[in-house]
Amino acid sequence: MQRTVAEIALEIGAEFEGDGSPIITGVAGLREAHPTDISFLANPKYKGHAAKTRAGALVVGKEIVVECSTVLLRVSNPLESFSRIALKFAPPSVELPAGVHPSAVVADNAILEGGVGVGPNVVIEPGARIGARTRIWAGSFVGRDVSIGQDCILYPNVSVREYCTIGDRTFIHNGTVIGSDGFGYDVDQQGERTKIPQIGIAEVGDDVEIGANCTVDRARFGKTRIGNGVKIDNLVMIAHNCVIEDHVVLVAQVGIAGSTIVRHHAILGGQVGVAGHLVVGEYSAIGAQGGVTKDVPPKTFYSGYPAAPHAQAARMQADLKRLPRLKDRVKKLESELKQLQEEVLNKRKDNDFDVG
Amino acid sequence: MQRTVAEIALEIGAEFEGDGSPIITGVAGLREAHPTDISFLANPKYKGHAAKTRAGALVVGKEIVVECSTVLLRVSNPLESFSRIALKFAPPSVELPAGVHPSAVVADNAILEGGVGVGPNVVIEPGARIGARTRIWAGSFVGRDVSIGQDCILYPNVSVREYCTIGDRTFIHNGTVIGSDGFGYDVDQQGERTKIPQIGIAEVGDDVEIGANCTVDRARFGKTRIGNGVKIDNLVMIAHNCVIEDHVVLVAQVGIAGSTIVRHHAILGGQVGVAGHLVVGEYSAIGAQGGVTKDVPPKTFYSGYPAAPHAQAARMQADLKRLPRLKDRVKKLESELKQLQEEVLNKRKDNDFDVG
Amino acid sequence: MQRTVAEIALEIGAEFEGDGSPIITGVAGLREAHPTDISFLANPKYKGHAAKTRAGALVVGKEIVVECSTVLLRVSNPLESFSRIALKFAPPSVELPAGVHPSAVVADNAILEGGVGVGPNVVIEPGARIGARTRIWAGSFVGRDVSIGQDCILYPNVSVREYCTIGDRTFIHNGTVIGSDGFGYDVDQQGERTKIPQIGIAEVGDDVEIGANCTVDRARFGKTRIGNGVKIDNLVMIAHNCVIEDHVVLVAQVGIAGSTIVRHHAILGGQVGVAGHLVVGEYSAIGAQGGVTKDVPPKTFYSGYPAAPHAQAARMQADLKRLPRLKDRVKKLESELKQLQEEVLNKRKDNDFDVG
Repeated sequence: MQRTVAEIALEIGAEFEGDGSPIITGVAGLREAHPTDISFLANPKYKGHAAKTRAGALVVGKEIVVECSTVLLRVSNPLESFSRIALKFAPPSVELPAGVHPSAVVADNAILEGGVGVGPNVVIEPGARIGARTRIWAGSFVGRDVSIGQDCILYPNVSVREYCTIGDRTFIHNGTVIGSDGFGYDVDQQGERTKIPQIGIAEVGDDVEIGANCTVDRARFGKTRIGNGVKIDNLVMIAHNCVIEDHVVLVAQVGIAGSTIVRHHAILGGQVGVAGHLVVGEYSAIGAQGGVTKDVPPKTFYSGYPAAPHAQAARMQADLKRLPRLKDRVKKLESELKQLQEEVLNKRKDNDFDVG
Repeated sequence: MQRTVAEIALEIGAEFEGDGSPIITGVAGLREAHPTDISFLANPKYKGHAAKTRAGALVVGKEIVVECSTVLLRVSNPLESFSRIALKFAPPSVELPAGVHPSAVVADNAILEGGVGVGPNVVIEPGARIGARTRIWAGSFVGRDVSIGQDCILYPNVSVREYCTIGDRTFIHNGTVIGSDGFGYDVDQQGERTKIPQIGIAEVGDDVEIGANCTVDRARFGKTRIGNGVKIDNLVMIAHNCVIEDHVVLVAQVGIAGSTIVRHHAILGGQVGVAGHLVVGEYSAIGAQGGVTKDVPPKTFYSGYPAAPHAQAARMQADLKRLPRLKDRVKKLESELKQLQEEVLNKRKDNDFDVG
Repeated sequence: MQRTVAEIALEIGAEFEGDGSPIITGVAGLREAHPTDISFLANPKYKGHAAKTRAGALVVGKEIVVECSTVLLRVSNPLESFSRIALKFAPPSVELPAGVHPSAVVADNAILEGGVGVGPNVVIEPGARIGARTRIWAGSFVGRDVSIGQDCILYPNVSVREYCTIGDRTFIHNGTVIGSDGFGYDVDQQGERTKIPQIGIAEVGDDVEIGANCTVDRARFGKTRIGNGVKIDNLVMIAHNCVIEDHVVLVAQVGIAGSTIVRHHAILGGQVGVAGHLVVGEYSAIGAQGGVTKDVPPKTFYSGYPAAPHAQAARMQADLKRLPRLKDRVKKLESELKQLQEEVLNKRKDNDFDVG
């Protein structure tokens, strides 16, 4: 599929500066674009790349000054307009067809509502219930009595263990595990551990997205809970009995220890760790790699290890950087003080001498 | 299944304070409990939640003072008693039945002892040997000549690659990989890498539990070894030729680089990283997110990056926090010294004048 | 298979010191070796282990002085020579045979070149193309229109989602996911998120190795790109639109946020995190657990959080350790200054008195 620059400009309601006749066949980033690609500039940080791009056309903001010879399509929201263009050039999105693949192993008493798609080698255990139009891709496992809502997608090789529940319109990416046992043991005096049965479940809400190769443990008893609208990136670990409230965002490789509550709309950066039995307040944010060891108040920005208010953490970092200067000042003080001491001492001697 | 508060009290040998007639139908945490749930208070930190709980009954310690109107069941070990109650209310635990599912692909010469259960789409390669009563869930892969002991559980989508061995009563959760290649390359002068064959194995002991989506690499040669009674949480990485001795605990997202030895009964907190070729001493503990760059002595508690004795690491953090105060003191010293210098200088002038 | 020490020495062209007649049946590390094993000493750090080893023979460098009674085989490169011995003692390497297992689900119009091996329960979707001699192990998923080159290996339970491409001679270990959706959302004023379609692909080059349970997200548009010769350890996360250039090395549990470029030959240590939209320069190295928050210049060594030039980061750590000493010096200054102030003050009084 291909269109001229002028045709694209018309589609997105852009004014264009330059020649509208070049043929565009795809979209690409500024650095990778070929002359038949259209690209965009939303972040002024990338102006330098725009100047050097080989793209055949560029979507930019209405006011921004760009030094390049490429045709410019001016719009009020370049990212949004470019997304619309990109969707038109994208290959067709791939959807699992409705119906059960003959290689799938689906228990007789599992309930599949209308339009459910079940891919090759999927296993659905007795008592499971799958809502209308939900798609379960190849190799996924749905345990006994699991309930999954409508319009969900489970990508290949996802596991949902027994009794867990998943709401509507929730997407779970490849390899993610919902409902694995929590990490709980009784320890005897020899330091040997006996497994504590993990008899609760994991409950995932509506409109959730969970990335690839994450793990959400089932509760010791009761439930590990992931609220509505929560967005979780790849390789994230959520321990038993955690509560991740509505609209929380967890970036990749976050780890949250047992029984911690992350209140609604909090955002945890990549690789953040949170200790157990804490509360991370609503609308708070934790900077990437932060290590949370105490409760975090609502609407605050914490960072560092142990996590502290970001301004304090940043100042501590700055102070640390300037330590050599502080040491120099102390050294200077020591030498000047010594000199002064000697001077005073000498004067006293002079005086003594005078007196003598 | 439901029972009265009085019936439950009788079952766990508790004295109860209040009305024994309410009907209990389930267990829950203090905050989530409904009036038909029983809950518990073991950690005094949660007394506030107990005061506000809607639970129909509460299991508590013998002496603790709780301000709430709920019926109290007094026992010497609330957590243990509550666990017994929870088990009775729990849904039946789900076990894979013995026998080989018809969709499983099991090599002719693989040896399956009595009572082994093999789920749908499991692949068992030639020469593998599976001990009595071991359960291998859907989609798992058991490589050539692998040996797995008795009474083990492999949850769905676990992989055990060729020649690796697993002891008795060991549980491995979904998506975990045992025996993937170690990360080893020869580097030429252009910085290009050639793979070094990883021809050793991974050997996992008895009574081990390994969480979901972990990776345990095979040895370059010889073995990567996980001892008896080791407990490993989710998303943990163990590199080639590591030795994880008996009864070690590795919390989620720990990463241990090649050839490091973690001695028996050591405990590594979440997200801890340990560099290669080190020894972490027996009965030592590493605080969450610690970065271990040197050997850790036995029976010590290390934390921080680079990991240091915890008391020292904590003092460094405290010092860092107080740096602004130290800077203020230096500033004050500078100004007072300057003043004194001037004073002495003036005096000298006075004296000079006097002398003059 | 067994050979005498003398026979092994002949095979690797070693001179040997001691008795050549003992029978060797295997290889092992210094600490684990039995008298029928041959071991090696390459790193002088392990001399102490060599002194105590029970190994029947030891491969060592030509000049190194080792105090032990074991037969020594002297060579110029002990590690390389030992690798050659180890390969001869290793069990046969396990390869998936060519041909398609009957349980695999391969789309009619997928193209499999000569000698391709497809294991049990593999799913290959329509339009996929698999190069000659490539092996795809049990339970792996190859999405629609995916292209995989020649001589690749996909270990069990790997997923490659639709439209992604993989070059020649690339190995991908168990459970790794290529082409999962990027983590991108539009946020409204209530803090609720709408998914931005992730319509790009992930493109993996030639001679790449990717460890177990990694995740490489597809691009928002365009491509996430992994260059030629890149080596990636286990549990690594690469976000959408990243570019990992040729011959980069990413150690276990590294996480790289969206649109970041890691230039050729850079090496990132274990658990390193890199923020989004950055450039990590060519031939640079980032120390384990480092947190990169700004561009890293080429050919530099950065470490710590926030990552800084290693010399500076190390000095900051050293300064921090010595803070108590600095505090002591400030305290001493304060007390001496006070004493001097009093002295000067007294003298003035004396002088005043004198004058009086």
